Amino acid sequence: MNIGFLLFPRVTQLDLTGPAQILSRVPGAQVHLVWKTRDPVPTDVGFTINPTTVFADCPPLDVLCVPGGFGIEDLFGDADTLAFLRRQGESARYVTSVCNGSLVLGAAGLLDGYRSACHWIWLPFLTRFGAVPVAQRIVRDRNRISGGGVTAGIDFGLALAAELAGDDAARMIQLALEYDPQPPFDAGSPQGAGAELVARYREMVAPRLARVEAALAQTAGL
Amino acid sequence: MNIGFLLFPRVTQLDLTGPAQILSRVPGAQVHLVWKTRDPVPTDVGFTINPTTVFADCPPLDVLCVPGGFGIEDLFGDADTLAFLRRQGESARYVTSVCNGSLVLGAAGLLDGYRSACHWIWLPFLTRFGAVPVAQRIVRDRNRISGGGVTAGIDFGLALAAELAGDDAARMIQLALEYDPQPPFDAGSPQGAGAELVARYREMVAPRLARVEAALAQTAGL
Repeated sequence: MNIGFLLFPRVTQLDLTGPAQILSRVPGAQVHLVWKTRDPVPTDVGFTINPTTVFADCPPLDVLCVPGGFGIEDLFGDADTLAFLRRQGESARYVTSVCNGSLVLGAAGLLDGYRSACHWIWLPFLTRFGAVPVAQRIVRDRNRISGGGVTAGIDFGLALAAELAGDDAARMIQLALEYDPQPPFDAGSPQGAGAELVARYREMVAPRLARVEAALAQTAGL
Repeated sequence: MNIGFLLFPRVTQLDLTGPAQILSRVPGAQVHLVWKTRDPVPTDVGFTINPTTVFADCPPLDVLCVPGGFGIEDLFGDADTLAFLRRQGESARYVTSVCNGSLVLGAAGLLDGYRSACHWIWLPFLTRFGAVPVAQRIVRDRNRISGGGVTAGIDFGLALAAELAGDDAARMIQLALEYDPQPPFDAGSPQGAGAELVARYREMVAPRLARVEAALAQTAGL
């Protein structure tokens, strides 16, 4: 079973490393990290991760997963990456994403008419691609399965593990990874965080949103 | 603020990548991944991550963090690694671990007389190093802060972020990473998973536990 994650510069690495940890323990699964070259790929945390394969050599994937990150702004106009996603997305059993990776699936034309999750602040962008935004941590629509922001990738990964190998296998993985979360604060959703914190976060990421907006405008004709 | 993670072969990569994601967003923080060489380090998921520095070049760390993984069995007798941990551990503001990384801190002599967390199945091993096992997701004792198994590293990371930068900063990071966990199953602890699943997991990892046992026996005189 081939499970492929798109690994791109400035990925939010936990979007990828969370579900990859879970899915690597599905019996028979092999995790691939796919990019254009095999050179080290810089993540948002500063360290680099190495692709395991490249677009041309990637086997047909059973699961295609696109994580998110601020680097998505460089992907909307990236014909090679979008072509790779379209090609794999046609035959994959599951076409999936975590965080604002769903916007990249959208740019590849893979979410037209589909319901999808996204990081809460990026959720409204989904409509640009004909997708239906759903503010849930895990969203399924036919063979599309998507997770919300960053850490939602872990919940998403477990749900996908259950799809692939059954509830018992998923529960075994959950036990092995001691996934019994106890967040020390209740600020993980806009509702829990409250209006004041949300407003400050919006202000902080406004330049990033504007850059994605600009990247989308530039590539509207593609 | 220098935050250093030990990156070693066969690390359970989420033990490292979870808290690294959180701590990288603490204002002023720089995350270092430290190992003997700068060569790519294989993780338990199959892909490799690149160290950002090596033992000799690593700056004095404000936070030292040792993640876990099956690869710990090679560290108990590894004089270079244990010397690095002892040296950094003497001056670090916080000496920390995730999962069975606490056993490596223990082997370096850094947990003698301290309370510590560990992955639930490895918890009893802590007594070999004079540490006091505590079955909690986050454990603090003076400047030692430890997380339980794998995903506990995310809760641990948030608690540590609050220590380093205050509750408000930690809550902002939690909102940004949408950490509002909703596990699809309730099998993340031995209690939740139930006796039958726990017994099967114990059987599955018994050879790994035996190898660590053997490694500890061989290095008892170090």
